[in-house]
Amino acid sequence: MANDGSETDPTAARRTPAGAAVLREDKTAAIRAAVFEELAAVGFARMSIEGIARRAGVGKTAVYRRWRSKLHLVLDVVSAVAAAGLPTPDTGSLRGDVRMVLEVAARALRHPMASQIIPDLLAEAARSPELAEALQTALHDSQAGVAAAVVAKAVERGELPADADARLALDLMAGPLYWRLLVVRDELPEGYLDSLSVSVAAALGAE
Amino acid sequence: MANDGSETDPTAARRTPAGAAVLREDKTAAIRAAVFEELAAVGFARMSIEGIARRAGVGKTAVYRRWRSKLHLVLDVVSAVAAAGLPTPDTGSLRGDVRMVLEVAARALRHPMASQIIPDLLAEAARSPELAEALQTALHDSQAGVAAAVVAKAVERGELPADADARLALDLMAGPLYWRLLVVRDELPEGYLDSLSVSVAAALGAE
Repeated sequence: MANDGSETDPTAARRTPAGAAVLREDKTAAIRAAVFEELAAVGFARMSIEGIARRAGVGKTAVYRRWRSKLHLVLDVVSAVAAAGLPTPDTGSLRGDVRMVLEVAARALRHPMASQIIPDLLAEAARSPELAEALQTALHDSQAGVAAAVVAKAVERGELPADADARLALDLMAGPLYWRLLVVRDELPEGYLDSLSVSVAAALGAE
Repeated sequence: MANDGSETDPTAARRTPAGAAVLREDKTAAIRAAVFEELAAVGFARMSIEGIARRAGVGKTAVYRRWRSKLHLVLDVVSAVAAAGLPTPDTGSLRGDVRMVLEVAARALRHPMASQIIPDLLAEAARSPELAEALQTALHDSQAGVAAAVVAKAVERGELPADADARLALDLMAGPLYWRLLVVRDELPEGYLDSLSVSVAAALGAE
């Protein structure tokens, strides 16, 4: 592997090939898709560039031409998901906005792909600061913006005091869902999102 | 490996050795301790019976005489932690009880061992129903009893309505802490447990 200085830049996940060869975008897309499938099937620790290449129907060289390691490849696909962002609800009430955030988050966490890949990457993040940072951006920072917007609108409407804590709002929305769907790995009981949105709205008003 | 029928019983984690040889308890304890250390160091997927034996200072045979596989060994140590249980607080108020539960849970989740091992086992649980069940018991069921007791006492004192939801109480206590400490992997901000206990008490009263 060439030591061209960019090796030390953890944000340079995507490789610029020497000689400026043109990279076929269909191959890049096939490799990205294969990464998600391999992560779900065998997990980060057991996943190999060889397995990804086989699933994508390309040679190992095609992968290494684009990303210098398994970690860089995963950082790149995770960051792409985070950049896509989440919609900010605008239902006219705090309870309604919270309900909509919970619904979108529950759908995302329940997706079979997410429910296998996220725990797997978090396990790896405990040993890789680079991956931990990318996941923090993907899972937390993108949603922190949504939580802040929901709280700001509720303050404007007079539903919450001006010093309401948007960070706590995010923890109260994301935490219980993550805990129940990806830690306890249980179905959500009937009416759960309704109860939780009433509770969260009350919690934010009290603190 | 002998197929003696007990192979099909997932609860029989601990092996009864053929010929009723006496197993030295100091070796058993050394192996159990080595499992935690190996899990934290290399993770479930990369952990081997050989590595555990080496760390415990015993032969591989000593491990296999006690447990038939890596999975059974981990199931056994995780179940032992769960059985130890958590204390039920009795401070005289819902907010005080919630505060104490949060404090104990935060201390447990912040422990370097837990913060590496739990995410790792959860990743594996997405692929192993046996491990998922053992973890559900260890992480959820043991704490569900504590949450139910806290809610029941608050109902007795008239702080909560009789139909207050103990399951939601657990999710509101465990979820935000788990999310912030093991998903976002961030420090708890100053005063966080105070804000969270006020919020959770209000949330339970509202729903």
